Formats: sequence, C-alpha cells, structure tokens
Amino acid sequence: MDGNSLFIQWKKQCLNKLDLSKKGSVDEGIEHVVSLLNSCEEYFTTSSCSGRIILIDGVSQSSDVQKQNCVWLFVSHQKCTSDDLMSALAGCCGDAVLKFEPFVLHLQCRRLEDAQLMHFVSINSGFRNSGVTVGKTGKIIMAVRSTHGLEVPLSHDGKLLVQQEYIAFLTQVANQKMEENRRRIHRSEEEKEERKKISVYKRRRKRERHQPDCSHGDGDSSVPDLDDCLDLFT
Amino acid sequence: MDGNSLFIQWKKQCLNKLDLSKKGSVDEGIEHVVSLLNSCEEYFTTSSCSGRIILIDGVSQSSDVQKQNCVWLFVSHQKCTSDDLMSALAGCCGDAVLKFEPFVLHLQCRRLEDAQLMHFVSINSGFRNSGVTVGKTGKIIMAVRSTHGLEVPLSHDGKLLVQQEYIAFLTQVANQKMEENRRRIHRSEEEKEERKKISVYKRRRKRERHQPDCSHGDGDSSVPDLDDCLDLFT
Repeated sequence: MDGNSLFIQWKKQCLNKLDLSKKGSVDEGIEHVVSLLNSCEEYFTTSSCSGRIILIDGVSQSSDVQKQNCVWLFVSHQKCTSDDLMSALAGCCGDAVLKFEPFVLHLQCRRLEDAQLMHFVSINSGFRNSGVTVGKTGKIIMAVRSTHGLEVPLSHDGKLLVQQEYIAFLTQVANQKMEENRRRIHRSEEEKEERKKISVYKRRRKRERHQPDCSHGDGDSSVPDLDDCLDLFT
Repeated sequence: MDGNSLFIQWKKQCLNKLDLSKKGSVDEGIEHVVSLLNSCEEYFTTSSCSGRIILIDGVSQSSDVQKQNCVWLFVSHQKCTSDDLMSALAGCCGDAVLKFEPFVLHLQCRRLEDAQLMHFVSINSGFRNSGVTVGKTGKIIMAVRSTHGLEVPLSHDGKLLVQQEYIAFLTQVANQKMEENRRRIHRSEEEKEERKKISVYKRRRKRERHQPDCSHGDGDSSVPDLDDCLDLFT
C-alpha cells in the first residue's frame, strides 16, 4: 500500500473509533479547530485538550507526580472561582498541586511538508513548544504545545500550606492564563483559515495554468505541493 | 553546495562563534553531553541549559510574563536553600514568580533520520516534550524538552503572598525536581553512549562484510545509514 492510501486508511480508522479519553468528546472551545483540521485531507487529529485548570491530589513522599498515583480533585476547561478550588481542596489527603495546562493537540500529517506548514502556523500563534515526531512506521505527528503553564503545590500530607487570599490570587492568575490560551487558539484558527484559502487559491491558479491532460492516479491533485507550503515560510 | 557540505559549514560556524548566552558558557552539569554530541559528525548543539531554579520579578498587571519586562532576582543551576530565595525576594518590587525550568537542548541534525534517532533517545530518557523542527533552509533542529516544571507566583506589587514555611517547602520541591532532572540527563547520556557504540559496531561489521572497492566521494562512509537508525526504533 502506498503512503497516501495508508494515510487515508489511518485517518478513517482514527475518526471512526470511539473517543477513549476520560471526557469522551472533543472540548467545547476547540470543536471548530478540530473539525477544520479534520476537513483537510492532509491532516487528522489524534488527541486534544482545549486547556484546563486542574487540582491533583498526589501521594506524599513521591519525588515525581505520576498521574497513576493521583486523584483528580477538580478539573475545569473554563475559568473557575476561588470557591471551586477551596471546596475541592477540602477533599485532599496528600500533596495537592494546582496546574494550568494549556491547549495541546496532536495532529497526524500526510507528509512532512504538511507537518512543517502546521508547525509554522502553531509557532506563529504563540505555541512555541510545538514539534514534529516521525515514527518508524512513517507516522508523522505534529504536537501543538505552549510554554504557558502554572504548577503550584498547595498542601502537604493533607494540610493546606497557603492562605485563602493566596488561593484567590492564584485563581485570578489561572483565569488570565485561560484567557490568553483562548486568544492563542483563536489566532491559530484564523491563521489556519487563511492558509487554507491561500492553498485553495494557489491550487486553482495552478490548475488553470497547467490544465494537465493526464492523471497520475495518486489522488494527490488537490493537495498543495512542497513549493506551495514552503512559499509560506518566511 | 550539497546538503552534507552545507551541514559541515554550519557546524564549523556554530562551534567557532562566541557563546552569546547571558552566562557565556555551557552549564557545568551538561558539558559532557554537549561535547559527546558535538563529537558526532551527524550533530551539533545550538543552545542548552542544564536546568535551573529562577526567581523572576515581573511587572504587575501584565497578563503574560514576558522575559523583556522582567528582572531576574535569582538563578541557580544547582540545588538552592530557602535562605537564598528569601534574600532574593527582599529585592522584589513587582510580581515575583518562582520557576523550575528543566534541561533543554537544541540539536541541529544532518539528516531527518539522525534527528529521529536522538528524538527516540530523548523520549526514552523521560524528555517527553521533545520534538523536531524542519526549517525552510533545510535546517533540522531536534529540541529536547521535559514536562517537569514548577511555576509559583510568590508576590504581588512587591508584597509577599505566602509564609516563610511555604518557601521552605517549595525549596524542597524545586530541589527534588533538580535531582530528577539530573537523573534524566544521566540516563540520556548513557543511552547516547550505548547508541554510539552500537552504530560504530554496525559500521565496522558492514565494512568487513562489503569491503567496497570504490568511494562515492560524499564523505558519508562513517555515518550509520537509515536502516541502522531505524533498527533502533521499537
């Protein structure tokens, strides 16, 4: 099977299978980004999170917070209140840590050039820790990641280490980060729309210019070629 | 100029130029990793930090902590004491934030397969946010990044928001992260040594098997080929 057919098969399998995440569906704030990407034949999303404020209760004495040893006291994909966090902290019996985790998305790409293009768009929208992974089987995954974080220990052995005023301040900081995260997602959405328009326009112009009278039968004729993608890099 | 000669030229230029970082030299804890990588003809490092505990004084009312608006109150590439942080906090007049930033390294790679190999080694050593960037000019950069962080707001408008006992607890947490960071660097160093041994052994075996009587003149004969690299991916 050639690379293109294999990609089409992977995409079909991925989009048809059950969503196995804890939540079981795509987060509200990024449904549009995810469906925009999945509507392009060069891409499909394999996982995503719109960004969240979480409160984790970890095991004390553990040098590293491992997800498997943690209880999730609170999760919100929206802004939250200080009261939300105080109520959740009441259930803590180990080492609680408040985290803001920004938007993250894994995008499988048909070709390396397609990954390069989305990588460029992501960096440009403020997702500076984005990067590409190329696996042995030829799977090309572009990970969209931000540097925007927050990780604050709040209790030890079930005992709160800070005062309520501090939690109120932290809530503000976390909500500001959520807001900035939303702005970056919006910026990347606009950039993607723009790139899509440019590539459709270029393909049309190219077709009008060349009017080829033969088909190579690779189903590839509607995809921007390497030159088109690299044109967009400055 | 072919890709290989261009890479050799880039490497020469990069390793000969002045170190323009604030510190002006490679951090002590990673000199060995950096020189090991630079001794391989497939790679050279373009920037690195061994991991650090920093205290930043940011401008209040700013929704995002931008480096250019910040004063660095404290930086340590080693473990630190609670007194170090308390003394540094005395100089704060805005919004102070304590951060632990783990090991980060940017590695320019000759070919995509070389980047894949080091990406695999990095993920395997715990640097899960590592990724590859391919630029328009053909530069292939592998970024080694960890998920291991800490980002704690400590003061607002110059006023400390937490108690001294909390700073003492945070110091412990930051030092534990520094320790875990050191372990991961060590693990990746061992992996790299191992890979280097395997690839030297394979090249030797291949040369003994084939004993070619002509040279292609591309200076490439001592580099593991794609099959060698991909053999290492499981």
